[in-house]
Amino acid sequence: MSQPTENSPAPEGITTPAGFSAAGVAAGLKSTGANDVVVVRNQGPQFAAAAVFTSNRVAAAPVHWSRQVIADGRADAVVLNSGGANACTGPEGFANTHRTAEHAAEALGVSAGDVLVCSTGLIGEQLPMDKLLPGVSAAVEALAATPEAGMAAATGIMTTDTVPKHGARHGSGYAIGGIAKGAGMLAPALATMLVVLTTDAELDAAELDGALRAATALSFDRADSDGCMSTNDTVVLLASGASGVRPDLQEFTAELTGLCQELAKGLIDDAEGAQHTITVRTFNAASEADALEVSRAVSRSNLVKTAIFGRDPNWGRVLSEVGTTAAAFEPEQLNVSINGVQVCRNGGVGEDRSLVQFSGREVAIDIDLNAGSAEASILTNDLTHDYVHENSAYSS
Amino acid sequence: MSQPTENSPAPEGITTPAGFSAAGVAAGLKSTGANDVVVVRNQGPQFAAAAVFTSNRVAAAPVHWSRQVIADGRADAVVLNSGGANACTGPEGFANTHRTAEHAAEALGVSAGDVLVCSTGLIGEQLPMDKLLPGVSAAVEALAATPEAGMAAATGIMTTDTVPKHGARHGSGYAIGGIAKGAGMLAPALATMLVVLTTDAELDAAELDGALRAATALSFDRADSDGCMSTNDTVVLLASGASGVRPDLQEFTAELTGLCQELAKGLIDDAEGAQHTITVRTFNAASEADALEVSRAVSRSNLVKTAIFGRDPNWGRVLSEVGTTAAAFEPEQLNVSINGVQVCRNGGVGEDRSLVQFSGREVAIDIDLNAGSAEASILTNDLTHDYVHENSAYSS
Repeated sequence: MSQPTENSPAPEGITTPAGFSAAGVAAGLKSTGANDVVVVRNQGPQFAAAAVFTSNRVAAAPVHWSRQVIADGRADAVVLNSGGANACTGPEGFANTHRTAEHAAEALGVSAGDVLVCSTGLIGEQLPMDKLLPGVSAAVEALAATPEAGMAAATGIMTTDTVPKHGARHGSGYAIGGIAKGAGMLAPALATMLVVLTTDAELDAAELDGALRAATALSFDRADSDGCMSTNDTVVLLASGASGVRPDLQEFTAELTGLCQELAKGLIDDAEGAQHTITVRTFNAASEADALEVSRAVSRSNLVKTAIFGRDPNWGRVLSEVGTTAAAFEPEQLNVSINGVQVCRNGGVGEDRSLVQFSGREVAIDIDLNAGSAEASILTNDLTHDYVHENSAYSS
Repeated sequence: MSQPTENSPAPEGITTPAGFSAAGVAAGLKSTGANDVVVVRNQGPQFAAAAVFTSNRVAAAPVHWSRQVIADGRADAVVLNSGGANACTGPEGFANTHRTAEHAAEALGVSAGDVLVCSTGLIGEQLPMDKLLPGVSAAVEALAATPEAGMAAATGIMTTDTVPKHGARHGSGYAIGGIAKGAGMLAPALATMLVVLTTDAELDAAELDGALRAATALSFDRADSDGCMSTNDTVVLLASGASGVRPDLQEFTAELTGLCQELAKGLIDDAEGAQHTITVRTFNAASEADALEVSRAVSRSNLVKTAIFGRDPNWGRVLSEVGTTAAAFEPEQLNVSINGVQVCRNGGVGEDRSLVQFSGREVAIDIDLNAGSAEASILTNDLTHDYVHENSAYSS
């Protein structure tokens, strides 16, 4: 995800598949003057779409709106803004989302009922519509199918992200592209995460929905930065059919899953204040559900996360989290490895903890339940001074 | 819980009720030379006892031992050590707990099967028995029924605690005393918390058990510092009957509950790195269970806890946690007050957030679910740089 240099290939993203244009502009919602309004347009010939949303019951206005838009399986465009979540903003907030969709629809010559809206930023403040609507107009004007336009969109949805997240995959005769944002309030049933995925494959809405749910279950749903579930999470998949290729659905789902995992990794790699990306893998579990429960419990432990920040192979904190779960295991049969060193064996002291190296960003915690053959991983990050700093100062 | 000065009354604690002696000595388990081995002895004439333990399935050796000891409702003494949790230490760890109980029993002239053992400190290391056993002998030698001996016991169980926690209540002709430790890994189903409670009232083991469970449910079980459940939590209640008074059970339970709440407050007030003690109260709930679920979810949010550290009345983070629960409520009927200012009204913007004052240590978050008349509170603390520092450096 590095920036392209003069000789590097153009960055891949949502404009990599045929049939999509994008734009990101600065409308003044962010005080920094950075891009903050984004439009992604599906130019067809097909307009199938699917989306998954936060399961938070306190959902933002754009989530309520977009749930209605996606119900018929068609979307022509997505409007996204950073600089304000439009959550907990009451009827006025919903009216503002509605106005945004209508404004974009008019400029694009489509129906407002086919325009998805996503917002991200601080909760509980009304969006400055006097800035947002001109921004939408400017973004529609700037729409282009170029890599640069895709990158402008990737940067326009950033909040506390330090790098844009984007990527693409190439199937047999078709492509899938995507952009993502999210660095805090990241937790399953998604996160403060906005993701737009595009493909030029020919697929109907039901096929897209099935592929998207399968892909998010193995990617964004298994990224857990700080255990906090957002009000605004949205992952959208748009299909233009412009390649004229009807893909093998299994291949498509695999490629989509790979792209979503790459983007999810990008989110955790850039999580607020994090110095380590931690893969908590539970194996030899009686079921995948058991493995997930254990990995998730460990990945949410502040004591584990501060230990990793301190480069401390404190396996006791791992075991004490495993012990809070309902997974099948016997305490005296648990093994834990940290970065390949089996520091806990049979529920007790294993290899010398001083052998554990913390040289790189990646940390692997492997938990052997000795109770079966299933496994699952959760991707998380350490808890650092910078996380506390960023989140104690965010709204002030 | 301030230190006594020359003219202040003697501190109250586990030696306040008649029939108990205590001691705390330095045996060298702590590198600082502070007290680290404690014995509390019930001198009778009665020896009824009850205890509650961590529900963590990875329980420490002393928890396994003490569960057996308490099964018959009798305990003559408690041996406690800081400087090592004796958790995840395998058969050798259990044998060490057994040896500790036998060593103490011999010195006290009682049965090892009536000696409870509690340990606290780092997980995954064997206790230095060559220091611990002489420490137990020295503590038995030093047993006294004085306030000073009670204070030595209170300091002997401290780990990262900065102040000893102790207190007493006086019922109609009897007293209840207690000491407590615990500053991190504090979460319900108790915490890395060791608590010894004593009373000179005449009560049998079943009565003590009922009173203790009722009291802990409304005190230690509602203190949640960092969401991490320990392997070692133990709360013990010993009754000597030395007052000759058979108390009204309702009064006794109320007094015991009050003492436990005072000690729980002391734990959260001294939680690792905390600058604010936060009471998360949910009211107008459809049930107490709903109120508890909401208060607990909010009290475990790192984003809420960092916001309070930053003196930021960020009610959006409160609402987004409420939205993750299954409690009965309508999002547009939620109200949230922070330190008395209703910053969120009807699920949206309420009073001006700049009115919220964060002048003292106490912070009140009051959540109105508008769904009934039940309420419950959880006591927690903010997430600070010092928490990250202490917990990234603890074992190194």
